[in-house]
Amino acid sequence: MALSEFSLIERYFAGATPARPDVHLGIGDDCAILRVPEGYELAVSIDTLVQGVHFSPRAEPEGLGHKALAVNLSDLAATGAEPAWATLALTLPRAEESWLEAFVRGFAGLAREHGVALVGGDTTRGPLSITVQAHGFVPLGEGLRRSGARPGDLIYVTGSLGDAGLVLLARQGLYLGPGQLSALSGRLDRPSPRVAEGRALRRIASAAIDLSDGLGSDLGHVCRASRLGATIRVDSLPCSEAVAAYVAETGDWSLPLSAGDDYELCFTVPARRQGEVEALGAGFDCGFHWIGTIEAQAGVRCCLADGQLLEAPLGFDHFSGSD
Amino acid sequence: MALSEFSLIERYFAGATPARPDVHLGIGDDCAILRVPEGYELAVSIDTLVQGVHFSPRAEPEGLGHKALAVNLSDLAATGAEPAWATLALTLPRAEESWLEAFVRGFAGLAREHGVALVGGDTTRGPLSITVQAHGFVPLGEGLRRSGARPGDLIYVTGSLGDAGLVLLARQGLYLGPGQLSALSGRLDRPSPRVAEGRALRRIASAAIDLSDGLGSDLGHVCRASRLGATIRVDSLPCSEAVAAYVAETGDWSLPLSAGDDYELCFTVPARRQGEVEALGAGFDCGFHWIGTIEAQAGVRCCLADGQLLEAPLGFDHFSGSD
Repeated sequence: MALSEFSLIERYFAGATPARPDVHLGIGDDCAILRVPEGYELAVSIDTLVQGVHFSPRAEPEGLGHKALAVNLSDLAATGAEPAWATLALTLPRAEESWLEAFVRGFAGLAREHGVALVGGDTTRGPLSITVQAHGFVPLGEGLRRSGARPGDLIYVTGSLGDAGLVLLARQGLYLGPGQLSALSGRLDRPSPRVAEGRALRRIASAAIDLSDGLGSDLGHVCRASRLGATIRVDSLPCSEAVAAYVAETGDWSLPLSAGDDYELCFTVPARRQGEVEALGAGFDCGFHWIGTIEAQAGVRCCLADGQLLEAPLGFDHFSGSD
Repeated sequence: MALSEFSLIERYFAGATPARPDVHLGIGDDCAILRVPEGYELAVSIDTLVQGVHFSPRAEPEGLGHKALAVNLSDLAATGAEPAWATLALTLPRAEESWLEAFVRGFAGLAREHGVALVGGDTTRGPLSITVQAHGFVPLGEGLRRSGARPGDLIYVTGSLGDAGLVLLARQGLYLGPGQLSALSGRLDRPSPRVAEGRALRRIASAAIDLSDGLGSDLGHVCRASRLGATIRVDSLPCSEAVAAYVAETGDWSLPLSAGDDYELCFTVPARRQGEVEALGAGFDCGFHWIGTIEAQAGVRCCLADGQLLEAPLGFDHFSGSD
């Protein structure tokens, strides 16, 4: 790390994220030196947010700091891991004090909420882009993965679906909602990674994923990894009032089915554990919502209340030109 | 990770880097799940290469793949860590098969050399930028750091200094060398991280750093972290014939003193261990070269053979406008 790279990260982040006894050497050396507790495995996830692709040039930096960490904590949540450390590679057109302070405020606020220490970083000059790697702990062999679903397993999601997509539509001027959209803007700008929910699902869920690209796409990953398929009942998809109003008005299910950026969890559980998982879900504000069933037949199918199949739209694909 | 993000990384990297038994879950899930061996700490380093800042738009992708991993393995080397895993966040204007294949060839070639498994990644669309995080193991408490130098410690570097800078000058048309420069181009494009050398220095070196920004700048980090200073004897700086010829011709020491990108190690050892460290250095092709001494007085001083002090140029600084 170059002098100013080091000092930019150090200057703005010093003391901003929690001190942890498992960080033997933190920001400011060639490497961070870290200790994974005995009996635990290390879970890591790396994600990049690029201006103009993942966020608008008008996006405010505090929200970006929050979101860059949140999307990675959401991956840890899907694995059932307890967050511990983060690293940050920040590419900026210029070192602008007010921007950096706001970015750190957003990043560190969420880091403190989850006990995450920033342990290393790199700052370079270039087009705005933010890469975060999150690191967490999971008891040996208990990490949730995409590949564990079995035929007959019940499919659940946390929270509600399509809120982030609706806010994005409204911001693009493509939908004029009934006014309550500003209350939903945090769902796009400051997602709450379902970390406690993910940890609670260890030893209960058979498979899990976080919803970054949309339910259809992400559940598709679970199905392919498990070599199975799924049917979703669209009438059971948990939606906010605003998304439900949009669906009622337009007849279009694409927001809850395929809009990205919700950062809810989607997981499967054996049917015999339905009571247990619903009791567990009752303890979380976001709730656990049963939306469908894993089946032997490949592919993700969506059916309406009358059993009629719906053509499921695909999720976000960076290189398909569909975004 | 989105469908194509995941599949781009998976498609091109599948089987390209070594399989390791400590990777319990690799590319293609929300998180990689990894096992740090008992008795070891985890060393991590993250670095970004941005087109137009760290490399030219004409840089060939195989070299970029090599270098993006090499700069991080060099940080592990400076800590004395044994490389184990890497993650890759790749931002690309478009998914171009020949580019990706060449990039993977360069990255995976170096990964195999050092037994490094690619365990996770993210591919996004945007201006070309490559972030790699390297992960390695170091026995508990044995990680080298910048802050351990003591007054009287001897300062060593591996290999030779200024080669990468000379190649860059020549490519920019600022220096017409005597013809042997093409033999040096690998020193800029495909640096060899001094991983074995760094591991051998555990329990011997009092402090270490890798030379990414130039000797003056990087030794300055060691001095500041150790709250000390240093004097370098410029006549003892190890230089290739080409760099020595440049210095003789121009009288300018800035290449070995402050040009970046050499990825050699700079380390300090207690004077009583001089024999031991020089015997150790004799076992490595690059050699260990004594270049100066740590002193109580802050700052990095450079003196000529006659003892006359030289004004030391500063290193590369991304935000100072000096690059």
